Amino acid sequence: MDIKVVAFDADDTLWHNEAYFQEAEQKYWALLEDYLPQHSVSRELLKTEMQNIALYGYGIKAFTLSMIETAIRISEGTIGTYVIDKIIGFGKDILAKPVVLIEGVEDALKNMKDKYRLVVSTKGDLMDQQRKLRDSGLEGFFHHIEIVSEKNEDEYTKLIKHLDIDASQFVMVGNSLKSDILPVLNIGGFGFHVPYHVTWTHEQIDFQIEHENFTELKDISHILNYL
Amino acid sequence: MDIKVVAFDADDTLWHNEAYFQEAEQKYWALLEDYLPQHSVSRELLKTEMQNIALYGYGIKAFTLSMIETAIRISEGTIGTYVIDKIIGFGKDILAKPVVLIEGVEDALKNMKDKYRLVVSTKGDLMDQQRKLRDSGLEGFFHHIEIVSEKNEDEYTKLIKHLDIDASQFVMVGNSLKSDILPVLNIGGFGFHVPYHVTWTHEQIDFQIEHENFTELKDISHILNYL
Repeated sequence: MDIKVVAFDADDTLWHNEAYFQEAEQKYWALLEDYLPQHSVSRELLKTEMQNIALYGYGIKAFTLSMIETAIRISEGTIGTYVIDKIIGFGKDILAKPVVLIEGVEDALKNMKDKYRLVVSTKGDLMDQQRKLRDSGLEGFFHHIEIVSEKNEDEYTKLIKHLDIDASQFVMVGNSLKSDILPVLNIGGFGFHVPYHVTWTHEQIDFQIEHENFTELKDISHILNYL
Repeated sequence: MDIKVVAFDADDTLWHNEAYFQEAEQKYWALLEDYLPQHSVSRELLKTEMQNIALYGYGIKAFTLSMIETAIRISEGTIGTYVIDKIIGFGKDILAKPVVLIEGVEDALKNMKDKYRLVVSTKGDLMDQQRKLRDSGLEGFFHHIEIVSEKNEDEYTKLIKHLDIDASQFVMVGNSLKSDILPVLNIGGFGFHVPYHVTWTHEQIDFQIEHENFTELKDISHILNYL
């Protein structure tokens, strides 16, 4: 192993994020409980999100618009505008949440920064990700920050080319097997999976990964032992 | 003049964009004419957009959410959900619009591509800008594509540093005096203004620019005469 660049996913790898979305979704379920039970609201919302993803991409604004669209559909147009106003508020609340680092992240970055080039590769709203990076206090650790609309083999190939290294010198660290690990393994890089306690349904995969370049970490503080 | 890099704004510089927003806004005025006259709806919408810009940034999703919020406010909550549904549709319509190049752009890029490094520097929704670049057929002309959340002196300074050139070797071409020209002049670069027939109120400035590095072009096909 001759790693030159360690790349990090951001949401739920460097700082907490999905928990904020799930908190908003729980309030959303409560708003719609007169129309449908929670699990059905959740399923309908995911359906709308998946239909909109090619147009909207990822992030809070997309999530908010999909919540509004779903509420109108589920209620057959009878939902009150005060509910729509509340949904807009849920989105703004997430955008204003403090950035809370995941335990061990700062120390891990400190220990790695002189040995490797550290980069961030994340998807989502451009503006929101930039805000979180700024507020996180971590920006100074990173040599390069890449905010992409989708994390797939093409995007990782471009990133590795941009970094002027070989895929075998690249390791991606993240909580999503689907976005952070699989595409990187497929192009010859290394993937370190650091699970987060909740995962968005869209990021879940239903099989086990067995690959010589794959490592499952309990938490990020163990990362140096594997490099 | 020893220009090495020519950077282009995208919306309303390479392809038509603002006209699509204005078309949507006209339909929006019509939806709300029972509540307020057009110019007041327009003013209220701009107010909402400005209040939300720090949270939402630029782009169609932000525009859609601000239209919904304004409709609820103007109607004091009495607007029907079918109107909200229509507004969501206006946003999706813009996202699905074809990319129509501005006349002369393709020839101008062809004539420049072997003499200069060409880049794109644009703001807006990440996903939407990537779609437009892909659909435009212009991607191959560009050495580097930068999608930022705000076009200010800091961002241009970073871009020029990334390109490994001096500001005096950089010219920015765009339709917005505020975002494309002023910040670049302020850091020592050159600004070529190519006006578009409509400009979003937020991008307008109310003074004349007089600066030795500033050039006003009638249209983009004249660009080589000034380099």
